[in-house]
Amino acid sequence: MRHFLRNHLVWLALIGCLLPAALTHADEGMWLFNNPPRKYLKEKYNFDPTDQWLEHVQKSSVRFNSGGSGSFISADGLVMTNHHVGLDTLQKISTPEKDYARDGFYAKTQAEEAKAVDLELNVLMGIEDVTDRVNKAVTPDLNPAQAFAARRQVISEIEKEYQQKTGLRSNITPLYQGGLYHLYLFKRYTDVRLVMAPEQQIAFYGGDPDNFEYPRYDLDMCFFRVYENDKPVKVEHYLKWSKAGAADNELVFVSGHPGRTDRLNTMDDLKYIRDHQMPRTLQMLNRIEVLLGSWSERSDENARRAKRMYFGVQNSRKARIGGLAGLQDPQIMARKAVEEKALREAAASDPKLKDAVKAWDRIVETDKTINANAKQINLLENRAGFRSQLFGIARTLVRAAEEKPKPNGERLREFADSNLAPLELQLFSDEPIYDDFEMLTLGDSLGMLDEQFGGDNELVQKVLAGVSPQQRAAQLVTGSKLKDVALRKKLYEGGKAAVDACDDPMIALAKLIDPPARAARKIADEAEEVKSQAYGQIAKTKFAVQGTNTYPDATFTLRLAFGLVKGFEENGKKVPFETTFAGLYERAKEHHDKAPFDLPKRWIERKDRLNLNTPFNFVCTADIIGGNSGSPVVNKNAELVGLIFDGNIQSLVLDYVFTEEQARAVSVCSPAIIEALRKVYDANALADEIVGGRLRASR
Amino acid sequence: MRHFLRNHLVWLALIGCLLPAALTHADEGMWLFNNPPRKYLKEKYNFDPTDQWLEHVQKSSVRFNSGGSGSFISADGLVMTNHHVGLDTLQKISTPEKDYARDGFYAKTQAEEAKAVDLELNVLMGIEDVTDRVNKAVTPDLNPAQAFAARRQVISEIEKEYQQKTGLRSNITPLYQGGLYHLYLFKRYTDVRLVMAPEQQIAFYGGDPDNFEYPRYDLDMCFFRVYENDKPVKVEHYLKWSKAGAADNELVFVSGHPGRTDRLNTMDDLKYIRDHQMPRTLQMLNRIEVLLGSWSERSDENARRAKRMYFGVQNSRKARIGGLAGLQDPQIMARKAVEEKALREAAASDPKLKDAVKAWDRIVETDKTINANAKQINLLENRAGFRSQLFGIARTLVRAAEEKPKPNGERLREFADSNLAPLELQLFSDEPIYDDFEMLTLGDSLGMLDEQFGGDNELVQKVLAGVSPQQRAAQLVTGSKLKDVALRKKLYEGGKAAVDACDDPMIALAKLIDPPARAARKIADEAEEVKSQAYGQIAKTKFAVQGTNTYPDATFTLRLAFGLVKGFEENGKKVPFETTFAGLYERAKEHHDKAPFDLPKRWIERKDRLNLNTPFNFVCTADIIGGNSGSPVVNKNAELVGLIFDGNIQSLVLDYVFTEEQARAVSVCSPAIIEALRKVYDANALADEIVGGRLRASR
Repeated sequence: MRHFLRNHLVWLALIGCLLPAALTHADEGMWLFNNPPRKYLKEKYNFDPTDQWLEHVQKSSVRFNSGGSGSFISADGLVMTNHHVGLDTLQKISTPEKDYARDGFYAKTQAEEAKAVDLELNVLMGIEDVTDRVNKAVTPDLNPAQAFAARRQVISEIEKEYQQKTGLRSNITPLYQGGLYHLYLFKRYTDVRLVMAPEQQIAFYGGDPDNFEYPRYDLDMCFFRVYENDKPVKVEHYLKWSKAGAADNELVFVSGHPGRTDRLNTMDDLKYIRDHQMPRTLQMLNRIEVLLGSWSERSDENARRAKRMYFGVQNSRKARIGGLAGLQDPQIMARKAVEEKALREAAASDPKLKDAVKAWDRIVETDKTINANAKQINLLENRAGFRSQLFGIARTLVRAAEEKPKPNGERLREFADSNLAPLELQLFSDEPIYDDFEMLTLGDSLGMLDEQFGGDNELVQKVLAGVSPQQRAAQLVTGSKLKDVALRKKLYEGGKAAVDACDDPMIALAKLIDPPARAARKIADEAEEVKSQAYGQIAKTKFAVQGTNTYPDATFTLRLAFGLVKGFEENGKKVPFETTFAGLYERAKEHHDKAPFDLPKRWIERKDRLNLNTPFNFVCTADIIGGNSGSPVVNKNAELVGLIFDGNIQSLVLDYVFTEEQARAVSVCSPAIIEALRKVYDANALADEIVGGRLRASR
Repeated sequence: MRHFLRNHLVWLALIGCLLPAALTHADEGMWLFNNPPRKYLKEKYNFDPTDQWLEHVQKSSVRFNSGGSGSFISADGLVMTNHHVGLDTLQKISTPEKDYARDGFYAKTQAEEAKAVDLELNVLMGIEDVTDRVNKAVTPDLNPAQAFAARRQVISEIEKEYQQKTGLRSNITPLYQGGLYHLYLFKRYTDVRLVMAPEQQIAFYGGDPDNFEYPRYDLDMCFFRVYENDKPVKVEHYLKWSKAGAADNELVFVSGHPGRTDRLNTMDDLKYIRDHQMPRTLQMLNRIEVLLGSWSERSDENARRAKRMYFGVQNSRKARIGGLAGLQDPQIMARKAVEEKALREAAASDPKLKDAVKAWDRIVETDKTINANAKQINLLENRAGFRSQLFGIARTLVRAAEEKPKPNGERLREFADSNLAPLELQLFSDEPIYDDFEMLTLGDSLGMLDEQFGGDNELVQKVLAGVSPQQRAAQLVTGSKLKDVALRKKLYEGGKAAVDACDDPMIALAKLIDPPARAARKIADEAEEVKSQAYGQIAKTKFAVQGTNTYPDATFTLRLAFGLVKGFEENGKKVPFETTFAGLYERAKEHHDKAPFDLPKRWIERKDRLNLNTPFNFVCTADIIGGNSGSPVVNKNAELVGLIFDGNIQSLVLDYVFTEEQARAVSVCSPAIIEALRKVYDANALADEIVGGRLRASR
């Protein structure tokens, strides 16, 4: 499940930076829709996508803001994604009595479609290049604090302007850092309803052991419908279904939202990730995995409550270990070093590029700054020391009270006008919050705060207020009233006066740590500003040396990847490009039907009805990464042949370097989806809608 | 399973220090057999153990050098301990076809008793006070390096002298650090055979969730027989069996080998543990738990190979989280601070104690030294960066070649004459070594080395030799021939010439890291010497203030604890002192017979035969800790009423502070053992031997 972006816990521990991309070769690249690899596709595959083709695929693509991708597959707003992308919603709408995440869901009638509590889908409607306006505002004479403020201000201004002009969600994304600033205009959908999900047991068949492995047998699918004005939305662009699916060696395209790559980091920056950032992240993931695993084992209900986070943590851990293995491989690093040497020599020898010569060292300096402040940044600002939904709500309320009265351009970015709607959607979510689970994670994270700052630290002592981390967590969780959404609304609307008058202990805690948290953020933001300028210089050098027909590192915005449907070789053995339902039953037998290789009851009972030769999962060489989960795979006719849900173990280095020898993207085959819907789930109405492209009149 | 000492991984990460103990109050204390709490027992319980009583219990007690306690329970050398203490042997004699750890074992005839591969049992035969001789050798004018060398020399000399004189294993243990040095004389047994073990499912019923919990339902027992000259040994001292078991409020005694406590650490030393040592240890435990958990899930055979280590890591993790919670509890720390203040004031006000005044600060300094060198000490000397059995063997061979030619008193302590026999037993063990498991743990630990030192570190680059940690582990494991015990013997006997001529890659690696590893050890040893002298001063202060009728911190030597059989109160509810078989079946039902609450087949089938009112587990207030696992619980008549196997969650702070409000030791009741042997395991011969105190003639 590589291709799944959002993991609060990981992002908490990561200091983001977005970097310029490598010169492409082979079937590499996560291309911008407004700069596709036309020349390469034409020369190598004799395929020249028309503007209409591109627009159609772009507008059929959907971003799940909970962390993944999807696509419209009917004119009536039906959206397909992965079960593990839908899991966030499946968990939020489940109860101790009805566990949709485990048991699946099917709305036999439209009336039964179940509303997600805080899910936002985005469709990219347009891209504007605003590079000149941004760059004009950030002049070279500014110091880092001034430059950061100026950049923030101009970005918030432009976003607001476009939002007002178009009514669309408007977000600026830096690409190639100093290289380009693009404004993305999204149509927002917030009335999203669950249509169908299979059991997690078949969606995530093989569990953690099979995760990131191939051959594979997962029905990792989930269907939603988008509504507007309480009616299914009518969309112009949706993907036609391919009943046949993908053929061996066929050229295919993946349209989705890769989250983040670090392919063009400098060597020193990669070493910083390898030796500092990644070990810190893995350390926290291990800690939380053990905590949740041990708690989940105690009862089924514990397991249900922890499921979404537990899955996310295990998934991230496995992905990151694979990524780190790449950074710890001297051969990969040597290849990177050769590329960097050439670039630095080019910068040194061309007077026009002389500004870039010191860029590499400036990045080293900022990494040192970040490393020296990592504890404060991670624990306080990124909340690794306060892992609690209630605390997150308190933090938002406390900061909203301070930020919203400020002019738009001076606010923390998440409170800019262009970002308020998504923020409010989360803040007022009806998502259930469980006291026991809150105490577990908050108690553990306060313990971590205590360990990392030391028990004698003044702030730690104020936070703990004379009791142990676990006791303090219990006080805070049971004492807080923030589960009440109406109270949150009152505090949010009441502003500073209301928040100051509130004696909720979680609010008091958020206030207590806000000054040092903001101080840590300031350090991180300014370091990132310096880094961004330095990477901008390096990007210019790259453009000068290698030209501009390339792609930027991933930014969780829409990209187009391509490649061939193709098996690979592993330890001297050929791994075929696809698996079948028959292989699923064989695998279960091999493992004596023991978890996580056991089959759901329905799949055992209905084996005889299935065509066991139906292709189940397949691999292709397209260049994807976390965030691409749920992306459609389409053929040259823009017909949907597959549903991306993972990469193989050899693809885990793609964060840092592209390779197509063994690295593969893993998808569910389109025929498997229809066969399962009809034969296993009695979901003929849904299957008919998918194949026909619209809701059946009779349904 | 608190009461289980040996965990390589934990000890690797810990820098040992043994400390003087607190003034006793309540039913506190792990008492020396040559200084029992006669006065307290007499006054509070009107019980005055005779010398004969003490000698009988002492010589009936058995130390498992694999990490636990046990006792003789028949004249024919039958020894009882816990399943989780026997697990080491159960795993080593199992094969992919016969999994004794999981499925249990019963030797119906004596001929079927299965020889353990490298198990050593020790029985304490005598104690000599050698304090004066040791102290005379370590004079105040020596610097730390000289003092360390002098102490090592005199200890090795005395041990050798006693070993030659008595033929017994002779080991000096520092008690109250500078306070006392006792020489322990042990009878060694190395022909030990497995007689009976139940399924791990009932021995460790409830798994990790129920570990350290009470009420409890575990049949955590295992039986061995000691042989000499290929015949069951005839022992004079063995414990008589109590058919009735323990009664509520009865005074009971626990004779066993508590491993380590830190009750009299200075406040700063405790804070060092809290803020540095413990987080480091937990970080490594989390890492290994995730590694092994994920690997175990892939197949039953993986799970079998990893079982012993996986159990040990989970057990340590849960224990240490509980211990850390104590250190992070401001109320416990405040109590400690009051005690320390009184002691420091006493030292400051008494001219005779003036040497002690600076002791507290000297301990701070040594902790700083150890912390600054912790990476080198843990990764290189304690092998946290080289977690591999083959590497351990290579290390021993390389060092033996260097150390054995030196005079006895100048060798590293583990190569002193008095320690060679146990060392050789381990070195030439037939324990199976699995390539895949070796590669897993070595690859992971080389990765950790890479992370912690940084990939650019010169030593790391030499260790990895141009490939990734995982690739390097594969090269080393598949390239090494050290699985061959005959080769090990040849290299060990061939000495330096043989080792130098050997081109085994694991030997080469051990040689490569030996110089920096020894340098790290020197720093640790000298810091410990300084610390030991400082604690000696503090101990003198304590004796002066509080008298000498006290007990030293635990040292994995034989101790006597005592207390009452007694329930406790938890969250306002009374927890009764014992459980029954009926409760076991209820718990399984509550959890729908799902792992880890499922019952072994035999227990389901034979439920009707059992007397369900049989007492199963019980708790008492005796003061125990890791290492006490398998200890006998005896009544005033020295009859065996129970078998220690755990402490409850409230007992996890006992590392640092004694409390008897809720902290309890958990035992298997003697009647449950007989009932299960007869009714579930058809092991009447064994039950008869236990009850009758000798082998049945007919068997």
